[in-house]
Amino acid sequence: MSTIQIVTNLTKEKFNDLVGKDLPFVIRSANFGRCLEFWNVEYLQTKIADGRKVPIHVGKNPLLDFTNKNFQYKFEEFGTFLQKCFAAQSSNELVNKNDYDDCSNYYYLRSIGDDKRGREIANLKKHYPSIADDVSYPEFIGFCMNDSNCSDVECDKRHIFSTVLRISSSSVTIWTHYDVLDNILLQIRGRKRVILFPPNDAEFLYLKGDKSEIIDLDADDIEKRFPLYRNCSKFEVILEERDALFIPAMWFHNTKALEFSIGINMFWKDFSLNKFYDLTDVYGNKDLIPGKNSLNSLKRILTDLNRLPKKYRNFYVHLMISVLRRELQGDSFMRNCQ
Amino acid sequence: MSTIQIVTNLTKEKFNDLVGKDLPFVIRSANFGRCLEFWNVEYLQTKIADGRKVPIHVGKNPLLDFTNKNFQYKFEEFGTFLQKCFAAQSSNELVNKNDYDDCSNYYYLRSIGDDKRGREIANLKKHYPSIADDVSYPEFIGFCMNDSNCSDVECDKRHIFSTVLRISSSSVTIWTHYDVLDNILLQIRGRKRVILFPPNDAEFLYLKGDKSEIIDLDADDIEKRFPLYRNCSKFEVILEERDALFIPAMWFHNTKALEFSIGINMFWKDFSLNKFYDLTDVYGNKDLIPGKNSLNSLKRILTDLNRLPKKYRNFYVHLMISVLRRELQGDSFMRNCQ
Repeated sequence: MSTIQIVTNLTKEKFNDLVGKDLPFVIRSANFGRCLEFWNVEYLQTKIADGRKVPIHVGKNPLLDFTNKNFQYKFEEFGTFLQKCFAAQSSNELVNKNDYDDCSNYYYLRSIGDDKRGREIANLKKHYPSIADDVSYPEFIGFCMNDSNCSDVECDKRHIFSTVLRISSSSVTIWTHYDVLDNILLQIRGRKRVILFPPNDAEFLYLKGDKSEIIDLDADDIEKRFPLYRNCSKFEVILEERDALFIPAMWFHNTKALEFSIGINMFWKDFSLNKFYDLTDVYGNKDLIPGKNSLNSLKRILTDLNRLPKKYRNFYVHLMISVLRRELQGDSFMRNCQ
Repeated sequence: MSTIQIVTNLTKEKFNDLVGKDLPFVIRSANFGRCLEFWNVEYLQTKIADGRKVPIHVGKNPLLDFTNKNFQYKFEEFGTFLQKCFAAQSSNELVNKNDYDDCSNYYYLRSIGDDKRGREIANLKKHYPSIADDVSYPEFIGFCMNDSNCSDVECDKRHIFSTVLRISSSSVTIWTHYDVLDNILLQIRGRKRVILFPPNDAEFLYLKGDKSEIIDLDADDIEKRFPLYRNCSKFEVILEERDALFIPAMWFHNTKALEFSIGINMFWKDFSLNKFYDLTDVYGNKDLIPGKNSLNSLKRILTDLNRLPKKYRNFYVHLMISVLRRELQGDSFMRNCQ
């Protein structure tokens, strides 16, 4: 298991260097504003008392499983959600016997926009204006303060794509997945364990789309059920309150709230990839267009190959794997004519 | 290393059973006609004395390397070729010190049709009528005696696609490759070592098209230069004179003449695959159409992915490998929408 570097006293240059390394790192003791001090259940209840209903995940099992949907989406008044979400904590601690059906529910809010179908980009300023100013960004990150509205094509600062509020009960664990945008997860209340895997571990994580089928990374029989998992390069870190984790695009990550948890997740786009981003993406997890096209083409190839008897189908699948492996080794595809 | 079954006293049922197993096997003591007795340099020189020139491979190194073309194609009068091809034997035996540049040339004939560019299917009856009747086929193979001209759509016999005469100097080793048709290699004169690998070893054989880049399967440093090679399931057999080897379609094979060698190679099509064969194929080694299309599509995918920075390109290549692996495990491609 690899450890994750913890850095303090960042400068813009140092931060850019680290981002360029394409490795996760923890930013410690940086000034992200008064949210670090103020935010807790009572404060947020007071500040967000407009009676709004928010869409939340509610499950009997804290290991949320998107693929098999072991949770429900519900709407709950914000303050009520906060209370229930926080209350789940104590009962979890009493239980801790894998007998989740007897527990109270586990709650998780991932803020979205006002669109009820979640088709709006989460934006703290727009959707939570009463608390948005509690968050500020250290200068070393180089966020453009015009946010996504910056119209200066020459502006070389980072432009925030989304600011996502994440609040969860203790124990809630979010499925291992990747996002296509670099992002910072600021842990404000409660400790959180984050496990990450580099992009090249895609082969070993039993993916369905952008999500791993391996739900319980702590299971004793993980390597028995998922034999390729042993090839993964696992990175693990426990975020303390006020720590911020840089999660590079395409890095798989799994978060587990060790306590009732409040955090903010800031995503930004890499301008050099602008023409490749899927413009319908509001979560920062839709595949880059050439990637999406590749996977769709591969699906068509496999459909076509399935016309062949299994022996021949499998042969060509193996051949394709060998072509892809060589591509990774920098050996470009070449097919000699006879 | 796996061994190859040697079978005698075959019946039609037993032969069909064995072919259905998709494993190579050696047919021993079967009646393939008087070629087994008569064929040698003198006999063939006498029988094929029409002064015809045949296209041959001539190399200084007995390990013929198609990809790097370490041999030349030349035309030689048939009898002259036979003499030179046979003569190479003695000098090789004297040398045997890997100092091939000092040796005489090594010769190899793979008969083709009359078309000088090799665009005709090899057919012993048509191109070597004076010796064709020396070869007969044991009934258990179930060849249709109308050959490829059989017009009876109900005929369920095997229809010979091509009959290829192979004559080579001692030591001549033919690059590891696959063919898309089941075939029998009848070894008439000289012993021959054949190494085979099952179709699923495609990933470990460093292919360029249908040919492996691993030229010397006896090299001491083979696993150093080709680390994946160690994953191969190697099958090896030494064919004695009069042995015939069944080589299943898609099985990789490499032949090494241990002595001056004369053989006949009979290919046939699997009727159930008729709609998938490339009709321009005269050698029996052009990919099945869905396979060819897959590889071409994959080439286009990779071109498109190369627009992305390497990190993202490699990520999607890994993702594609993971999709293909799951396909092999019978888990069909499924992409969940978010």
